[in-house]
Amino acid sequence: MKKYLIKLLVGVTGFFLLTEVSFAETTMSEEGQYIFNSLAFYIGGVLVAFMAAGFCMLESGLVTTKSVSTIAAKNIGKFAIASIIFFLFGYNLAYGISEGGFVGSFSIWSESSEIGTGYSDSSDWFFQTMFVCATVSIVSGAVAERIKIWPFFAFAVVMSGIIYPISMGWQWGGGWLSTAGFSDFAGSTLVHACGGAGALAGVMVLGARIGRFTSRGGKRIMVPFAASSIPLTTLGTFLLWFGWFGFNGFSQLAMGTFDDVTAITKIAVNTHLAGAAGTVAGAAITRLLGGKTDIIMMLNGALAGLVAITAEPLTPSPMFAMFIGAVGAIIMYFGTKMLENFGLDDVVGAIPVHMFAGIFGTLVVPLSNSDTSFGTQFVGVISVVTFSFVLSYATFSILKSTIGLRISKEAERLGTDKAEVGVVAYSIRD
Amino acid sequence: MKKYLIKLLVGVTGFFLLTEVSFAETTMSEEGQYIFNSLAFYIGGVLVAFMAAGFCMLESGLVTTKSVSTIAAKNIGKFAIASIIFFLFGYNLAYGISEGGFVGSFSIWSESSEIGTGYSDSSDWFFQTMFVCATVSIVSGAVAERIKIWPFFAFAVVMSGIIYPISMGWQWGGGWLSTAGFSDFAGSTLVHACGGAGALAGVMVLGARIGRFTSRGGKRIMVPFAASSIPLTTLGTFLLWFGWFGFNGFSQLAMGTFDDVTAITKIAVNTHLAGAAGTVAGAAITRLLGGKTDIIMMLNGALAGLVAITAEPLTPSPMFAMFIGAVGAIIMYFGTKMLENFGLDDVVGAIPVHMFAGIFGTLVVPLSNSDTSFGTQFVGVISVVTFSFVLSYATFSILKSTIGLRISKEAERLGTDKAEVGVVAYSIRD
Amino acid sequence: MKKYLIKLLVGVTGFFLLTEVSFAETTMSEEGQYIFNSLAFYIGGVLVAFMAAGFCMLESGLVTTKSVSTIAAKNIGKFAIASIIFFLFGYNLAYGISEGGFVGSFSIWSESSEIGTGYSDSSDWFFQTMFVCATVSIVSGAVAERIKIWPFFAFAVVMSGIIYPISMGWQWGGGWLSTAGFSDFAGSTLVHACGGAGALAGVMVLGARIGRFTSRGGKRIMVPFAASSIPLTTLGTFLLWFGWFGFNGFSQLAMGTFDDVTAITKIAVNTHLAGAAGTVAGAAITRLLGGKTDIIMMLNGALAGLVAITAEPLTPSPMFAMFIGAVGAIIMYFGTKMLENFGLDDVVGAIPVHMFAGIFGTLVVPLSNSDTSFGTQFVGVISVVTFSFVLSYATFSILKSTIGLRISKEAERLGTDKAEVGVVAYSIRD
Repeated sequence: MKKYLIKLLVGVTGFFLLTEVSFAETTMSEEGQYIFNSLAFYIGGVLVAFMAAGFCMLESGLVTTKSVSTIAAKNIGKFAIASIIFFLFGYNLAYGISEGGFVGSFSIWSESSEIGTGYSDSSDWFFQTMFVCATVSIVSGAVAERIKIWPFFAFAVVMSGIIYPISMGWQWGGGWLSTAGFSDFAGSTLVHACGGAGALAGVMVLGARIGRFTSRGGKRIMVPFAASSIPLTTLGTFLLWFGWFGFNGFSQLAMGTFDDVTAITKIAVNTHLAGAAGTVAGAAITRLLGGKTDIIMMLNGALAGLVAITAEPLTPSPMFAMFIGAVGAIIMYFGTKMLENFGLDDVVGAIPVHMFAGIFGTLVVPLSNSDTSFGTQFVGVISVVTFSFVLSYATFSILKSTIGLRISKEAERLGTDKAEVGVVAYSIRD
Repeated sequence: MKKYLIKLLVGVTGFFLLTEVSFAETTMSEEGQYIFNSLAFYIGGVLVAFMAAGFCMLESGLVTTKSVSTIAAKNIGKFAIASIIFFLFGYNLAYGISEGGFVGSFSIWSESSEIGTGYSDSSDWFFQTMFVCATVSIVSGAVAERIKIWPFFAFAVVMSGIIYPISMGWQWGGGWLSTAGFSDFAGSTLVHACGGAGALAGVMVLGARIGRFTSRGGKRIMVPFAASSIPLTTLGTFLLWFGWFGFNGFSQLAMGTFDDVTAITKIAVNTHLAGAAGTVAGAAITRLLGGKTDIIMMLNGALAGLVAITAEPLTPSPMFAMFIGAVGAIIMYFGTKMLENFGLDDVVGAIPVHMFAGIFGTLVVPLSNSDTSFGTQFVGVISVVTFSFVLSYATFSILKSTIGLRISKEAERLGTDKAEVGVVAYSIRD
Repeated sequence: MKKYLIKLLVGVTGFFLLTEVSFAETTMSEEGQYIFNSLAFYIGGVLVAFMAAGFCMLESGLVTTKSVSTIAAKNIGKFAIASIIFFLFGYNLAYGISEGGFVGSFSIWSESSEIGTGYSDSSDWFFQTMFVCATVSIVSGAVAERIKIWPFFAFAVVMSGIIYPISMGWQWGGGWLSTAGFSDFAGSTLVHACGGAGALAGVMVLGARIGRFTSRGGKRIMVPFAASSIPLTTLGTFLLWFGWFGFNGFSQLAMGTFDDVTAITKIAVNTHLAGAAGTVAGAAITRLLGGKTDIIMMLNGALAGLVAITAEPLTPSPMFAMFIGAVGAIIMYFGTKMLENFGLDDVVGAIPVHMFAGIFGTLVVPLSNSDTSFGTQFVGVISVVTFSFVLSYATFSILKSTIGLRISKEAERLGTDKAEVGVVAYSIRD
């Protein structure tokens, strides 16, 4: 008997010597994981790219007819510029940071994929680049109809090359916020509140559009400006919503294991339900308070819900995700009214949607994720929002006092399309 | 010699004891299949989500200019509401059914993924939820321009929470229709005819739009109402077409084996060619019968072809798939004329596209799939269509006699955008 | 000792006999590769399908208001027709070619997937079919507003059934150009210059739109025709850009290994940056030369950059990819002016975008890919462009002298929408 046991032992030894790698195969191979992870970034990048088209359609539809071509020029332009700048120095400024540090290095990104990294370098760059494009998009709509195109492009360079990469690197690059324990899964603060703070700075430096506010009996009254195309705004919202499946889902940053793919799909469910709850909240609040079911508040409600869930789309139950989405939309609604009361002219509602709902979403992370604390979340939000607001305000102010930021009154009456782009958006009425 | 054979046997035994899982690795590992299957549901869900935007654009373009914002509100609203309701009780009503049963349980869906299931629970919920959104979308267009928004939302709750889940569960939940041998691969009947029957009920209860029909010499004449935007209608059709690659392809419900991925791609080819044949049939029939090449009939022809192939996109040859698509489009064409003759005002042609082509597609399954029978197909179609029509008719009737279903004549003249939403869709003409 | 060695040997022998396949598992299994490769074609096909919608929106937006429904009819129609024809004989004409040969066989494509092929036949057909749809789309915009619909469909049959499959087969089917060492990764020449040459032939045979050119002081002056919708044009450009991630990325034709997925994502980065550089070049050149920042030149600049990188998106550094994209856009700009000087009326700029930038991109391949030579690239370009131009010219001429190609002057004044389609594109002004 003992003899056979020895023989078995020998057979087993030979087996172990030769099959150490095969054992890993009972799950997914290293190459398999590499392919799945790179594919995740690829699909995620394409979905987030759709958000660029989404922002463009949303903003095109919400501005007045005479500024639509300019929105198009600004959106395709910033998609291009942000990508180039992020390649030239933004990426390494964010991810070249030392552990616990404040800033990376000004250097060109380069690819050198190894299987051990778990994904191709290019797939990561591709995915991350689409995030910076989204951040700049947020500003674009708020400052519409009175900003000059090229100063906006100059701001896009600063936002995508300095403001976003530095503050984002604090967390996702492994810098000081990450070390401090801050948590922002897909960017309620790092993308949305950051972009929203930039938008707020722009709106403050620029001032309101001519005729946007008037006073009656000493009280400030907002004059409604007709949106050029509600169907395009709606299309844009749908595209943003779908883009969010990539934005949040693939911020899991891996897909090659049971745990990762399960997380990605859990995130998709929570993201979807938060957007759904935001939509319903937007519809209900306007119907209850204002009498009619305001489509724009439904759309911005959807977006606010999606922004709010972005800080932590994995740990909440679907029920709690809906709660977060609905509250995000309600905050957006009252935030919109508040900005109007302050005489701030945010053309598309970018500040309440992205900044207010983004801050809210980040602050409530500890309610579902016990690894985080309200104190640290608060520090993270304050740091990023302040950093973005101050630098954006400075940038807009410098542009204003040098090359000029705002178009002339004559040009504004004519519309930016005629004044700046030279192409009228629609000839449908002819 | 015998001695060595024994030794070999021992070695082999040791090997088997330790490598039982590794053998599965000659194909795809259990974890690999889980990832592929979950990814399939994820990609499929995103593609079917695009159909929500597609329906919205299609309907936005086909209604008159004064009802476009309302279409937008209804479509984003039902996307949200159907998802929430399906989460709260629709899903378990459909899939919580006992084998051969009639109805599942009213309970909240919850996630508890295990590798043995073969895919993540969330991925399945995500994919299935987009189907209920599509079903409700079908009704939205048919009843446009005269239905009140909130009663429509109430109907969306019933459709996504009761009508669709129960009848769908009969088949896909493993209920009595499935046991009886009915076959409906991706939902020609369970989604499209079900939605189309709801649309028919809505159109009947609501009545036609003011001025839609007039009579000349005792004969009913349809007055053409100008579509607000053909390019948006076309965009919507393209988005629906692409969404169908997810709708049909990933209804294979798995991707982690040679057989499954081959089936998915075969389905994509058949689906695409059926849509193509429907398009050409729509173009040809209007040119041959009416003189001009009617773009709307081309677009609805494409959709009818896609609906018709949905019941069985795997077993037909590509040639037969084209035949099914073309006949589906022809049925849609004559069905459209028939509805007009009956004085039924289906604003976007949802009933001929989804109900008539869907019934046709389901009935011809046995021509390519020998595991099915005409009798059972007939029973399945009749059951689902009747169930959906009766419950929809009852729901619309109850809404009509309680909170009211149709806007006032004054509101209809003004347009639902001004009366219900308070936001005009276009300011382009200003 | 020797005894144990023998026993070990026996154990090992048994192991090898039974686990030969398992060893391959240290990387990706054959079935895994098959699934990944088929999935790559599937995702790629869906993304390239989006280009059909992109072309439709781009062209819809750039034509005048009275020809938009016709663009829609032509685009959905050619999407259908090209797919059917490519199934019936185009695919085997291209891929049924003998090595180094000139032409394949006129026969129906059929599926017979085997795991050894590395991907499902259907997935390959699906992906390749979307390429022929793109090629025909290029022609559609150039000849807009004066071509009759059905003669255009007849041309689409010839383009998708004869011209594109034969010249494409020379290279991708393994024909004589491939044997000669020509290199065109994703089709700067085989798709874009081929389609552009067809567009040039169409524009020449048809002549300019009524009133497009006038003369002042003996000099030809181009009269600006207002584009119907800049936001739709921009949406179309975004959709094309995203489609290009599939078009170029998945032209790697495989995803199941470390090398392949790394290549796909490298290609995505280069493609994106080339498009970005083209956009900036288009903005800069119009601002520097013309005073205003022309949105149309930004959009066509993006497309020209994307077309130029398509011949070799893998080997250039990202920096060089940007250079190629920017030069492509500059060539497009001056090419547009040149066509105007020649009195050629290319409605959407298809010839400078696709033909001129495509030729440029193909010719500069040797600068980054040392396996190619300028001589062979030149031969390839000349052969394909000449073949496409001559056959297209002949086809258009034959159509002109038989069933007629151009609508009547009266119809042109009325617009093709009323004359040909019978459906007005917009009722927004009503």
